Amino acid sequence: MNRPATASLLSMLGVDLPLIQAPMAGSQGSALAIAVCEAGGLGSLPCAMLGIDAMRSEVAAIRAATRKPYNLNFFCHAPPPRDAAAEAQWRALLSRYYREVGLDPRQIPEPAARRPFSAEIAEAIAEFAPPVISFHFGLPAPALLAQVKRWGAFVLCSATTVEEARWLETRGADAVIAQGLEAGGHRGHFLSDDLSLQSGTFALLPRIAQAVRIPVIAAGGIADARGVAAAFALGASAGQVGTAFLCCPEASTSAVHRAALLGEAAGATALTNLFSGRPARGIVNRLMRELGPLNPAAPAFPLAAAAVAPLRAQAEQAGRGDFSPLWAGQNTSGCRELPAAQLVRQLMAGVAAAD
Amino acid sequence: MNRPATASLLSMLGVDLPLIQAPMAGSQGSALAIAVCEAGGLGSLPCAMLGIDAMRSEVAAIRAATRKPYNLNFFCHAPPPRDAAAEAQWRALLSRYYREVGLDPRQIPEPAARRPFSAEIAEAIAEFAPPVISFHFGLPAPALLAQVKRWGAFVLCSATTVEEARWLETRGADAVIAQGLEAGGHRGHFLSDDLSLQSGTFALLPRIAQAVRIPVIAAGGIADARGVAAAFALGASAGQVGTAFLCCPEASTSAVHRAALLGEAAGATALTNLFSGRPARGIVNRLMRELGPLNPAAPAFPLAAAAVAPLRAQAEQAGRGDFSPLWAGQNTSGCRELPAAQLVRQLMAGVAAAD
Repeated sequence: MNRPATASLLSMLGVDLPLIQAPMAGSQGSALAIAVCEAGGLGSLPCAMLGIDAMRSEVAAIRAATRKPYNLNFFCHAPPPRDAAAEAQWRALLSRYYREVGLDPRQIPEPAARRPFSAEIAEAIAEFAPPVISFHFGLPAPALLAQVKRWGAFVLCSATTVEEARWLETRGADAVIAQGLEAGGHRGHFLSDDLSLQSGTFALLPRIAQAVRIPVIAAGGIADARGVAAAFALGASAGQVGTAFLCCPEASTSAVHRAALLGEAAGATALTNLFSGRPARGIVNRLMRELGPLNPAAPAFPLAAAAVAPLRAQAEQAGRGDFSPLWAGQNTSGCRELPAAQLVRQLMAGVAAAD
Repeated sequence: MNRPATASLLSMLGVDLPLIQAPMAGSQGSALAIAVCEAGGLGSLPCAMLGIDAMRSEVAAIRAATRKPYNLNFFCHAPPPRDAAAEAQWRALLSRYYREVGLDPRQIPEPAARRPFSAEIAEAIAEFAPPVISFHFGLPAPALLAQVKRWGAFVLCSATTVEEARWLETRGADAVIAQGLEAGGHRGHFLSDDLSLQSGTFALLPRIAQAVRIPVIAAGGIADARGVAAAFALGASAGQVGTAFLCCPEASTSAVHRAALLGEAAGATALTNLFSGRPARGIVNRLMRELGPLNPAAPAFPLAAAAVAPLRAQAEQAGRGDFSPLWAGQNTSGCRELPAAQLVRQLMAGVAAAD
């Protein structure tokens, strides 16, 4: 571990332990974030799928439960224009599944809101002056970023290439999260959608650590104390862990998702665009097998989600994850039904022993 | 570093340093292996593309140049039956390129020999009693493996999943090479061809180290001393490095390949079956872009190679790598025009400092 760099990052974040709980939209809310914060790590609240009211109430819940710093996570995608033809083609591709379960394709709801960070959101959370804000898919526009920084927020953002890390440093990120290809959920790439540029943590992390002066946080494949130690060896000042927290009682991970994470199926993951329109890593399930995990017919992010949602709901009621985004990293060996605080202690075992 | 485990592996291999130079068929011969052996690591001779006479003469060259242990590497694939229809379909897909360069498709040579390890090969190398033998794509049949072990050879084999590592341990491998998805060249999978089972070094290595009792060697993404240290943290007893050796003067890497490794293009790699019929990681080039890196029309390994070979030869004469297998791992940051012995010292810098 590069102790001065880690100590400096801990001081900037205001936390005791060099561990960030990865924000996982759809699988957790304030409860997991609070548990991790209280255990000395940095808990994260994924805000991308929350409306303004829910967001404020979740942040208020964190504030009421802990005096420790916490992280609010937002997406920074450019919302695509609606494309009726593309959406109709997508529903046509899914029509056999609608028929199979007896759904009327005309009853498909409007696409779910996955709103990017905006002036409206900034206004809604300003009173909380959140201590840490993390972004995925790049940064908000300069004026909006400046507003966030005026609150005193420490700004993190995911980088999936050396080029993205340099871009983020130049534009004011305070630290960068090197997201290796092992990571679960959405890839955070924003300068190119060429997936051949994406690489595993072993290849990405040391190159980013070499390329930027701001602290680097490692993400992707870290599931235990050895993973944290290896991340430090490769130049990280902290580790970000997501998948291992998914089976904690404080997470809201669905029953089918938990079962998949703890079963044999978890050994096979792939990047898929079927559930949202952007490549994200999840456990291979029926829809991914039958349509191919990356299908060009899926409409742009986040428009693909709406047409799959009713299939997912119906299958999950029957206890099946055939149409669910079973987000998971490649290393699910850390998944256990364990309180988050205990998981934090296990992940930090090597750090505690070293210091 | 788990010092007792590493010391034990070094003693079994008979080498000074916990570093194996990955065998890289087509890009190196005895010269690179000798340089690495003399520097204290384990040099490897890739034998899969050598005829019996060339193989014997290369092994003799190693024996004449060094008294250190060395590794001979073989493939263990099941050669596919010839399939005239599939080969014709493949040539048809490539016909636009033949026309472009003025090649007559009827002049395409017979598929290149990539012979699996066999009784004939065993007989040809028995007199050398090679100290270390490594296999890719699984192990030879039990009787043949027993013959190799009677020479006293230490037997290594690549594993790309936990299941493969356990299989190898049960069947008599003395150590297993955990080949993370970052690695260049052919994926070594042999129990399943489902690529969604393949994972990055961060996810694969600690799970294999947990699952087997034999020593584990890490491969994939290691390009410098930090990478070696991280591999030890994740449970490895030694590291295997390939890509970083490709630009050493002792390697026979082609000029277009060297240029690609040292240039911007190296940032984009993909698994491709276009050049051999099996997925292997290489730098994305024209053929991969235009046909897609994994094209179902490519005949079974190694039959795909023959039809591409004349296109490759012609393009390389013109200084272009459009049709060349530009094998590379995801981390090319270690590629420099540096004598192999110096590279060995740099890779082992952390190990020397720690001991």
